[in-house]
Amino acid sequence: MELDEMAQRPLSVGVIVGSLRQDSLTKRVARELIAAAPPRLRPRFVEIRDLPLYNEDLDVEVAAEPPAAWARFRAEIRACEAVLFVTPEYNRSVPAPLKNAIDVGSAPHGQNVFRGLPAAIVSASPGRMGAFGANHHLRQSLVFLDMPTMQQPELYIGGSDGLLDENGALSDPSMASRLTTYMERFAAWAACNARMAA
Amino acid sequence: MELDEMAQRPLSVGVIVGSLRQDSLTKRVARELIAAAPPRLRPRFVEIRDLPLYNEDLDVEVAAEPPAAWARFRAEIRACEAVLFVTPEYNRSVPAPLKNAIDVGSAPHGQNVFRGLPAAIVSASPGRMGAFGANHHLRQSLVFLDMPTMQQPELYIGGSDGLLDENGALSDPSMASRLTTYMERFAAWAACNARMAA
Amino acid sequence: MELDEMAQRPLSVGVIVGSLRQDSLTKRVARELIAAAPPRLRPRFVEIRDLPLYNEDLDVEVAAEPPAAWARFRAEIRACEAVLFVTPEYNRSVPAPLKNAIDVGSAPHGQNVFRGLPAAIVSASPGRMGAFGANHHLRQSLVFLDMPTMQQPELYIGGSDGLLDENGALSDPSMASRLTTYMERFAAWAACNARMAA
Amino acid sequence: MELDEMAQRPLSVGVIVGSLRQDSLTKRVARELIAAAPPRLRPRFVEIRDLPLYNEDLDVEVAAEPPAAWARFRAEIRACEAVLFVTPEYNRSVPAPLKNAIDVGSAPHGQNVFRGLPAAIVSASPGRMGAFGANHHLRQSLVFLDMPTMQQPELYIGGSDGLLDENGALSDPSMASRLTTYMERFAAWAACNARMAA
Repeated sequence: MELDEMAQRPLSVGVIVGSLRQDSLTKRVARELIAAAPPRLRPRFVEIRDLPLYNEDLDVEVAAEPPAAWARFRAEIRACEAVLFVTPEYNRSVPAPLKNAIDVGSAPHGQNVFRGLPAAIVSASPGRMGAFGANHHLRQSLVFLDMPTMQQPELYIGGSDGLLDENGALSDPSMASRLTTYMERFAAWAACNARMAA
Repeated sequence: MELDEMAQRPLSVGVIVGSLRQDSLTKRVARELIAAAPPRLRPRFVEIRDLPLYNEDLDVEVAAEPPAAWARFRAEIRACEAVLFVTPEYNRSVPAPLKNAIDVGSAPHGQNVFRGLPAAIVSASPGRMGAFGANHHLRQSLVFLDMPTMQQPELYIGGSDGLLDENGALSDPSMASRLTTYMERFAAWAACNARMAA
Repeated sequence: MELDEMAQRPLSVGVIVGSLRQDSLTKRVARELIAAAPPRLRPRFVEIRDLPLYNEDLDVEVAAEPPAAWARFRAEIRACEAVLFVTPEYNRSVPAPLKNAIDVGSAPHGQNVFRGLPAAIVSASPGRMGAFGANHHLRQSLVFLDMPTMQQPELYIGGSDGLLDENGALSDPSMASRLTTYMERFAAWAACNARMAA
Repeated sequence: MELDEMAQRPLSVGVIVGSLRQDSLTKRVARELIAAAPPRLRPRFVEIRDLPLYNEDLDVEVAAEPPAAWARFRAEIRACEAVLFVTPEYNRSVPAPLKNAIDVGSAPHGQNVFRGLPAAIVSASPGRMGAFGANHHLRQSLVFLDMPTMQQPELYIGGSDGLLDENGALSDPSMASRLTTYMERFAAWAACNARMAA
């Protein structure tokens, strides 16, 4: 197969949203990112709200099955070729539901379902700092998970409560092209690093 | 009241363990720390295993009560005068159950129950690095929570699976004095910074 | 001595600016912080621009003196009772000149001149994120230096290039009271934690 | 050109050592890594000890040349196709000389010489924690520099003062294969991500 063909084949992208709120600002950001994705990317949400808190005892007991939601989540990530994380910041770090998804997916020992999947991180907050703290704490975890993580462009979305106008369109006209560029760069990153694993 | 009296009055210390495992190595470390505490400290465990994943929707709905476990946890922390965190590392960061306790206790907006409580962090891992990554990610959250956090001594316990011998005693004779010193320093830190809030 | 007296006695505060530029935006922020300090604080700049890059060989050679600028810097910090760091962000972390001052002041082994000094960190950038990355990387170093570091208020100054108007006054009227509050809280923090060392 | 050919062509690798000591333990680690490199990698040291502390004034003055050492360093990095960082930890973060090299190479604005170069980080300390703090602080800077950074294997070398025996050979027989594996993985990483830039 030629390089150009490999770069163009469709890629299944899991989108994990760090907030559980029904009307989450972060989920809105994620929807706009999905809308801005080039055709070769096939993004879909992977749900994390039903995952019981990670407890190794539930994974290693011989006679028992791990929680069904864990098995469902792990199977969904195994079916992905890349992962896009979209996260708010709670207490200057990664929200617990997102950290829980990381911990569930990485276990049990030797069965990390995230291993080798190219990743990108978009962080967003109503304030001006765009959840920088959560973004970089998550990056530290992705080192351990062995997920090649896109470096540039970085995307810290501040003022996420004003992202959309009253009609549900992006308030800032320049944001659309930033999101498009971001997703195109992510497609190139995912294609390049997916090849390595292949 | 004189300084010396203030430094000697008993202090109620909440001990939060970052792992949910029944036979957690981290919990063993916590028990040894409690045993090493000077008389003026009154440490007790605060349970975090039953806390539903933090979701702001459950906190702000007008007609509903937040989960009972959240209310229980918040009340227990409100009754503390200091907090000792004892944590393992999951994926180079804070385990989800501990981050969840942080997120639950800090919410809803304006009702952070951790505010002003002096804190210390002990991290432990079976490997040699003693959960350094979890330790410092947690420190970043404690800045936001406004918890004055003891700087020295730092305590990163490596080889936590060998902490105790077959009789349940500390394997390393020097560890006992390290733990005692740590808890004495924490008592002084908590007394000093508790005065500030008073 | 009574608590109230201790809280009111003057405190000598070293102010370390992380940028070496003559017309540094960060230095302007530092000047405004100094202007906003309550009378009990006695702040003065401690110069770091002439410090040769830290190299342990220069500290431990028996027959030689360490560089004169190192000796000058160490003596100035030893004369301080608290330290205020004001820093920009270079490459998502602490600028090299500031990290160099940290490394010079902490060495040689056992002679850390920063030990026990209460600290606060203000970070500033022309962008909107206020040098969050530099702020928290510096906090990690201050743990090792054993400097009790004020947690709240956090102060991340974005848009530092617009801090002052054409007359050199603060452009944002609310900024003056934020800086005053910050320095009052720092005075209380420094007084409280200085007592501990005493 | 075929994928296999691209993966095999020689790659020029700059090796940057974070310590300035003549007999630096970190430099010994770097020499062992170079010895363990597969033939396709062409590693060579890039000197950082003579770089004046970064000061933007020296870069932007119209009539003046930046310091000659800065120009030399920038030219050497421009000639590299990948960079290997080998660093100790000073005060829980990146040593000032290494941070200075990062700051010099990334400036002036728009002329970052590190941009796009695949990178790997090995950290080492005499203690048991292997300079974890320095390793991950450096990773945060490499995000901004846009250097695709290898995630696994992570390599934190503890007990670096015992790395070599009295004959200058590796004390731990398993270390040789760890270093070889590391450099082979780095060669694959550099080849894959270099292709992307091409």
